[in-house]
Amino acid sequence: MLRPMANVYAVIMAGGAGTRFWPASRSRRPKQLLALGGGDEPLLAATVRRLSPLVPAERVLVVTGEHLADATIAALPGVSRDRILCEPAPRNTAPCIAWASATIERLDPDAVVMVLPSDHFISDESRFREVLARAIASAEGGRVTTVGIVPTRPETGYGYIEVGRDLGGQAKEVARFVEKPDRARAEAFLAGGTHLWNAGMFFFQARAMTALVAQHLPDLAAGVAKIAAAASDGKEAETVREIFPTLPSVSIDHGVMEKASGLAVVPGDFGWNDVGSWQSAWELGDKDGSQNALDADAVAVDAKGNLVRVLGEAKGKKVVALVGVEDLVVVDTDDALLVIPRDRAQDVRLVIEALKAGGKKELL
Amino acid sequence: MLRPMANVYAVIMAGGAGTRFWPASRSRRPKQLLALGGGDEPLLAATVRRLSPLVPAERVLVVTGEHLADATIAALPGVSRDRILCEPAPRNTAPCIAWASATIERLDPDAVVMVLPSDHFISDESRFREVLARAIASAEGGRVTTVGIVPTRPETGYGYIEVGRDLGGQAKEVARFVEKPDRARAEAFLAGGTHLWNAGMFFFQARAMTALVAQHLPDLAAGVAKIAAAASDGKEAETVREIFPTLPSVSIDHGVMEKASGLAVVPGDFGWNDVGSWQSAWELGDKDGSQNALDADAVAVDAKGNLVRVLGEAKGKKVVALVGVEDLVVVDTDDALLVIPRDRAQDVRLVIEALKAGGKKELL
Repeated sequence: MLRPMANVYAVIMAGGAGTRFWPASRSRRPKQLLALGGGDEPLLAATVRRLSPLVPAERVLVVTGEHLADATIAALPGVSRDRILCEPAPRNTAPCIAWASATIERLDPDAVVMVLPSDHFISDESRFREVLARAIASAEGGRVTTVGIVPTRPETGYGYIEVGRDLGGQAKEVARFVEKPDRARAEAFLAGGTHLWNAGMFFFQARAMTALVAQHLPDLAAGVAKIAAAASDGKEAETVREIFPTLPSVSIDHGVMEKASGLAVVPGDFGWNDVGSWQSAWELGDKDGSQNALDADAVAVDAKGNLVRVLGEAKGKKVVALVGVEDLVVVDTDDALLVIPRDRAQDVRLVIEALKAGGKKELL
Repeated sequence: MLRPMANVYAVIMAGGAGTRFWPASRSRRPKQLLALGGGDEPLLAATVRRLSPLVPAERVLVVTGEHLADATIAALPGVSRDRILCEPAPRNTAPCIAWASATIERLDPDAVVMVLPSDHFISDESRFREVLARAIASAEGGRVTTVGIVPTRPETGYGYIEVGRDLGGQAKEVARFVEKPDRARAEAFLAGGTHLWNAGMFFFQARAMTALVAQHLPDLAAGVAKIAAAASDGKEAETVREIFPTLPSVSIDHGVMEKASGLAVVPGDFGWNDVGSWQSAWELGDKDGSQNALDADAVAVDAKGNLVRVLGEAKGKKVVALVGVEDLVVVDTDDALLVIPRDRAQDVRLVIEALKAGGKKELL
């Protein structure tokens, strides 16, 4: 079941901006290029590596921003440069996916495409690939398919997928997509067992996506057709630079998925973490007996539940000493140091706003 | 009254160890070499500078440890090298003061000596010199004299001086020295108005100190006499290295002052701060509207009462961002970063102990 499937391609969406992991993340070093899952492996490299038993690197396309091209190539030594698609401007996920899918359709008109985020963490990679294989099988059967994460808490920060009737092969019909719920609804979803988290993973025949985009986003379809025509003439790069920034900026969820019918969803329970903030990095980190996720050289006295990360020149050299503090995030880089409570980790954006207002663009 | 007095010499005790201001202070960069009073002026340099209208640099002796000689000379461009006395080993304050006083007595048998700590902060320097002049006048009259600080809080961390009858010239007799009190006694001292803080400032005729040491600490007197004899033969350095480490390790308070009679004290109210911990550094720092004492480049969002200091290579370059934290001390250096609540600032010593236990001597 887990043999490589010759007509299956992966599209890794790696265009994220670097704000929630400031000061580690920057506009030119966004989250997917950081080793937030532990060790020294960037999240993007882990994403490609864990796919490899199913989809070898030569059938992986990575879509990123032009300004991230060099760093993305450097993070993925196994992926050749012509498999990196560079967006000249961010246009949300629908143009990204439509362009990548059309590119794959030219390589193989019968291709099945899986679209995956580049910046998530998965603890059970073997189980993950089993779920992917089921989703691919569902897509091969003709249904646009997604993988929904089995909720483990009443999360109000994600969109949900309500599941409908059973379709066999552990796939179920998508009853509807549900916007981020309030706390009461999130608790009901968790208790009810019929809602899954939308993790932005999609599986489809390339030609089916072409048809859906033509049906629901005709302007996008026309733009992608122009790019495809230019690609046949060897002029793709110039045309992308001209056309891509004019494409409608819309998400694949709103632009296509929520309007399409007959979608399938396969539930996934493989230790998924969207690594959404420093709070998630703490959750994923190795901890001492006082729940501190520290660098090797840290000294913690009467300190509990803290995350410490030293990056840049001082990594592995600098000692961080914590005394009498709890549940803090301390992140040190060459030119910036952040101290914030874990439960306010989302408010890193306030620092970004203050730096923007102060004209400190070199720190963003 | 404030003209320079030709026979008045100052001894600055600058042998402190660097623990309470870790990671800024280290064994080779103790507190007196740090600019903890603001600006870029080390506390030691400020000590010499604010004396200069009374005592010019050529009549200032600085006693420090051998390992601190170069850094001490570098911090005091106006003081010549032969005015720096280097202790080969720390022996508390009595040997330091006896040696320095004997050295001055050789230069001028009629000298009056003032002994001052090197690592305190004084906000009203003009008032400070007025008080010193009174203490000098008292010492010139033959009494060993001290300056006692008028208490501003029920401090339990200092020794006190109980004042007796009035001696004229704003000097009073020392009734007795009092050990660090408990909270209730400290409150009674504050309310009573007859107790002053012992700040370790002493004023005396050099020959009077020689007599007191001979009377109360004969072993010390004998050792200092050997050093003095060697100095006359131009062999002081070798003899100090041989003799000094064998001298009794005792404080001038216990060894001499508490045993002597007829001592005088002049009350001082000149904005004194002993800069005892990072808490004091916060008290002395320039603060924003939220009581944060920050470096210029810091970003504080919903943050109150914090102290931030960046030292070393990153000074003036690195941005420190605080979000949602209160009353923290954050000190960043090239090789160490400290995060500790202000009200636990004394517990920096726990970090020192942990680093010692971990064999990290290079950080001490």
